[in-house]
Amino acid sequence: MVYQVLQKNPILKRGVSSMKGSLLYEGKAKRVYHTTDESEQLILSYKDDATAFNGEKKSEFAGKGRLNNLITSKVFQYLHQHNITTHFIEALNETEQLVRRTTIIPLEVVVRNQAAGSITRRLGIQEKTGFTPPIIELFYKKDELNDPLINDVHAYHLTDITEQELTFIKQEALEINQTLQQLFLKAGLTLVDFKLEFGRLADGSIVLSDEVSPDTCRLWDRNTGEKLDKDVFREGTGNLIDTYENILHRLEESVCVK
Amino acid sequence: MVYQVLQKNPILKRGVSSMKGSLLYEGKAKRVYHTTDESEQLILSYKDDATAFNGEKKSEFAGKGRLNNLITSKVFQYLHQHNITTHFIEALNETEQLVRRTTIIPLEVVVRNQAAGSITRRLGIQEKTGFTPPIIELFYKKDELNDPLINDVHAYHLTDITEQELTFIKQEALEINQTLQQLFLKAGLTLVDFKLEFGRLADGSIVLSDEVSPDTCRLWDRNTGEKLDKDVFREGTGNLIDTYENILHRLEESVCVK
Ligand SMILES: Nc1ncnc2c1ncn2[C@@H]1O[C@H](COP(=O)(O)OP(=O)(O)OP(=O)(O)O)[C@@H](O)[C@H]1O
Ligand SMILES: Nc1ncnc2c1ncn2[C@@H]1O[C@H](COP(=O)(O)OP(=O)(O)OP(=O)(O)O)[C@@H](O)[C@H]1O
Ligand SMILES: [Mg+2]
Ligand SMILES: [Mg+2]
Repeated sequence: MVYQVLQKNPILKRGVSSMKGSLLYEGKAKRVYHTTDESEQLILSYKDDATAFNGEKKSEFAGKGRLNNLITSKVFQYLHQHNITTHFIEALNETEQLVRRTTIIPLEVVVRNQAAGSITRRLGIQEKTGFTPPIIELFYKKDELNDPLINDVHAYHLTDITEQELTFIKQEALEINQTLQQLFLKAGLTLVDFKLEFGRLADGSIVLSDEVSPDTCRLWDRNTGEKLDKDVFREGTGNLIDTYENILHRLEESVCVK
Repeated sequence: MVYQVLQKNPILKRGVSSMKGSLLYEGKAKRVYHTTDESEQLILSYKDDATAFNGEKKSEFAGKGRLNNLITSKVFQYLHQHNITTHFIEALNETEQLVRRTTIIPLEVVVRNQAAGSITRRLGIQEKTGFTPPIIELFYKKDELNDPLINDVHAYHLTDITEQELTFIKQEALEINQTLQQLFLKAGLTLVDFKLEFGRLADGSIVLSDEVSPDTCRLWDRNTGEKLDKDVFREGTGNLIDTYENILHRLEESVCVK
């Protein structure tokens, strides 16, 4: 299991040939580093910070970076096994992963299987209302504007994506949804909604980037309905580290990825 | 010219056979009355009230109802001449018009040729930025939710329209845009953006309803750039009645509709 392999390899697996270079960018949840030898690869270093409501609520949780790194690694490996291309290359140690460098398209692509969170308040839709087919929402990734909801035509004006590419991104998001629903089902979890970011490789092609973790997914226990994701922090209803440990543990128990 | 005809007919043109029945609904800008003889026709009675920012700013302007009734009548007649079907039947007097009853689809369909108003703040787009093709935005018509922006899939969940019908509405909105741009151009005005409402007739077909007036359009003087619409009220930069009189006058001077 990835987790155990990583415990035995707390230092960079690729060693000298891929050392951590200078800091390229620091976000709210991750630091992004260059690699010293390979300009098309980056190191994502997961932080212990938790933020919500566009940074209005903030806290630090020792061990969160490790959990999100390991969970995201496991999820991306599962996606690869199911023929979905992502930026992910490998976990390097407990808090860092090697990824292909992309130019992030400034869109948050949200897939909703059931109503929860902002959509319930924004559109007056009751929590747990099911969406078949799932609803895809686009948000313009721009902190100063508070990541506003946009429509497809806005996306063409605000980013460089074409109509064809947006169609691809939506299809890919739906396929990722199906694959992740399957993955989390095995772990006794309902995938309520999640946020994706896509980026462009040097050759122009678009791949899933960023992270897939309890920070970016709503995961509810299939039996009890308990919320096992960042909502425990947003709503102050539970221990974030215990919750994320629970998710990692379930994924390790239920899913075999080499 | 309509204006003059109407001045000579301050009472109901259709007389006894179509009397004003009971009040069906009172909105912020109009009262909607049944007709006594014909259940599929309604009378829209334009009020002197002006509201902005979802009713937060309010005022009354003697004569506004008359101006919006006459301007909307003229616009709808022009649309009919250009083969666009609407709910409009005829102006009955200075403040009232007879329309076909529709079940309003709770969408505000906004067409933007240039950036102005909410889109500049929401997406950080500079005022006057041109959109080719024009941007169409959908807002969910729901006062309690502050008429939120939605995407197409939201519209399918929140209303009874089908994909085909939404495609029709958007095409129709673009055609109306072209026709109105032409109309206002003759009047020395640039049509910056506008809001439409569509409704369903008894047979299920969808037609343009509600009003097209300086309350629902942004109109800028082609030469001076002066704002000649409800923004003079929103921004407190001019006399609303003088402005709307100006628009009516220009339409009467430049456009011949029987
Ligand atoms: N493969 C990749 N190549 C380049 N950048 C990436 C890649 N994957 C993710 N990123 C970017 O790394 C940045 C750091 O992630 P983090 O989640 O901390 O940012 P954030 O605070 O959520 O968002 P913001 O971009 O607004 O800072 C994000 O901008 C994210 O889009
Ligand atoms: N042909 C029509 N048949 C039925 N209703 C119509 C028709 N045309 C317009 N309406 C409706 O008449 C109502 C009154 O118009 P008005 O502009 O005053 O309402 P509003 O305050 O803008 O909106 P609201 O519907 O939120 O009250 C609106 O709900 C509008 O949608
Ligand atoms: Mg992030
Ligand atoms: Mg109205």
